[in-house]
Amino acid sequence: MSLSDPVIAVIGAGAVGGYYGARLAQRGHRVHLLTRADCRHIRQSGMIIHSLDGDFSLLPSQIHAYDDPRQLPKADLVIVTLKTTANGRLRELAGPVLKPDSVILTLQNGLGNEELLAELFGRERVLGGMAFVCINRPNPGEIFHTDHGVIRLGEPFGIVSQRAKKIAELFNSSQVKCEVLEDLTFGRWDKLVWNVPFNGLGAALDLTTDQIVGNEHGLRLARHLMQEVIAAAQPLGVRFNLTVIEEKIQHTQTMGAYKTSMQIDRLMHRPMEVEAIIGNPLKVARSMSIATPYMEMLYDTLLLIGATKMD
Amino acid sequence: MSLSDPVIAVIGAGAVGGYYGARLAQRGHRVHLLTRADCRHIRQSGMIIHSLDGDFSLLPSQIHAYDDPRQLPKADLVIVTLKTTANGRLRELAGPVLKPDSVILTLQNGLGNEELLAELFGRERVLGGMAFVCINRPNPGEIFHTDHGVIRLGEPFGIVSQRAKKIAELFNSSQVKCEVLEDLTFGRWDKLVWNVPFNGLGAALDLTTDQIVGNEHGLRLARHLMQEVIAAAQPLGVRFNLTVIEEKIQHTQTMGAYKTSMQIDRLMHRPMEVEAIIGNPLKVARSMSIATPYMEMLYDTLLLIGATKMD
Repeated sequence: MSLSDPVIAVIGAGAVGGYYGARLAQRGHRVHLLTRADCRHIRQSGMIIHSLDGDFSLLPSQIHAYDDPRQLPKADLVIVTLKTTANGRLRELAGPVLKPDSVILTLQNGLGNEELLAELFGRERVLGGMAFVCINRPNPGEIFHTDHGVIRLGEPFGIVSQRAKKIAELFNSSQVKCEVLEDLTFGRWDKLVWNVPFNGLGAALDLTTDQIVGNEHGLRLARHLMQEVIAAAQPLGVRFNLTVIEEKIQHTQTMGAYKTSMQIDRLMHRPMEVEAIIGNPLKVARSMSIATPYMEMLYDTLLLIGATKMD
Repeated sequence: MSLSDPVIAVIGAGAVGGYYGARLAQRGHRVHLLTRADCRHIRQSGMIIHSLDGDFSLLPSQIHAYDDPRQLPKADLVIVTLKTTANGRLRELAGPVLKPDSVILTLQNGLGNEELLAELFGRERVLGGMAFVCINRPNPGEIFHTDHGVIRLGEPFGIVSQRAKKIAELFNSSQVKCEVLEDLTFGRWDKLVWNVPFNGLGAALDLTTDQIVGNEHGLRLARHLMQEVIAAAQPLGVRFNLTVIEEKIQHTQTMGAYKTSMQIDRLMHRPMEVEAIIGNPLKVARSMSIATPYMEMLYDTLLLIGATKMD
């Protein structure tokens, strides 16, 4: 395995995977995107990236797209950016690119993705990370990167490793800021403290973040959900600063009328990542007998909305 | 005071008050409607009632409409059908029609109306009741009565009284089925067991009753809310049959795509009766230290929706 000059596969290369794959390809790495939706366009016309860190384009010779996972070469580094609602297809989609020493990095949303990949492909090869990035893909092969971009990654089942540092170097040398987390579990739950209320309420009620934090009742709901996420994480040894809730509220108040990914999925009538973002944290809480009634209610509400409002 | 041949005032005569007032006037009683919206039309053209119990119309000489409460005569029987969101104006609207022996019957939704009227005008004169009726008023002075119609009334602060029976006779002799409840408190909470989940979820999520009971997650939410309402009522001595939840679910499953009044209010961008239907039961639960987290969450959600979705 070579992580200094790896063959890279991106499984489920939508906006996020497409952008990071394009950055790595721009740097000259061998990047292979598995993307059913954009495959034909990228093969014919390459990619165009409009980025606050500098626009660029890639020729079809510079980035390789596939719609069949069996066509990709075996990869040293497998970056998984598949939407979690398609996790049931992970074996079929990621399995064919694996060789014995492939490393898998999941940048998917929410909780439970490292565990699922470990179960499917062996825990020794799995790393986890989070992409903090505002990105959208209005047309095939065309990506707008409008804010942020940092990746924070780490070992889900062990201590900080050389391979984590090497992957971070790979990104950092490709114009993608990347940090290695000493505690990925903390990082995941810290993101959930924000995602559960704002993705959850935003999608359940069709509200932007400013509508939630601009109202005393929205604030009460958000704070209550945050408290429950913090309580659910505690038995795992995840300890938050006392000020975490108010810091996240204040930060959200600077974000304007932001639509979370789950609200956008609702509005676009696409599957929402309910299990990864709410259901899996809820399972952890239940298994620890932590009472999280607001998360329970939000979870059923989102599944009800998914079944009634998205035909 | 004469309840056999009373002067009747209806305060806040919308669809419900207009219909019952019209039935009493049809029978020949002296009925005075306080209705800002329909006053001019009724004075000019009277009323038309399309009812499954028989259509009829009233001449302007047969029913009296006012937009100023100081113009009404003093009344023996004051029927309050004001929307609870206007309860802050009850003193101003109902006060002028009262004489020392007037009886007040509130047919308003939810909890807390008898208590408020008692506080304003004296508890000895207050009766409470519930209107089980499907009714709408598409145009001024024109009412469609499409289903049900029964009134159940009783003494909120005492035992079954002669006056309750007399008022029931008044309605029953005017083609309005009316029953006297031995336990109005039970009746109110029994209605809340249905209204909290279906008005609440229906308005918060913009869902019809069949969308809620046609989905396993909707059913879980409805059942959980019903359990909380039942628990909140218990310290008041209100005891429900063990089968009450499943009976109400089954009944709801026969109702089709029913829009509750609160969902309609949301869709019409009108004030929703959140306090009467959710907030006041919640206050009771809190005062008894009964944990009702789903009601808490639903309450804040409805106030958030009221502030963000109804401009």
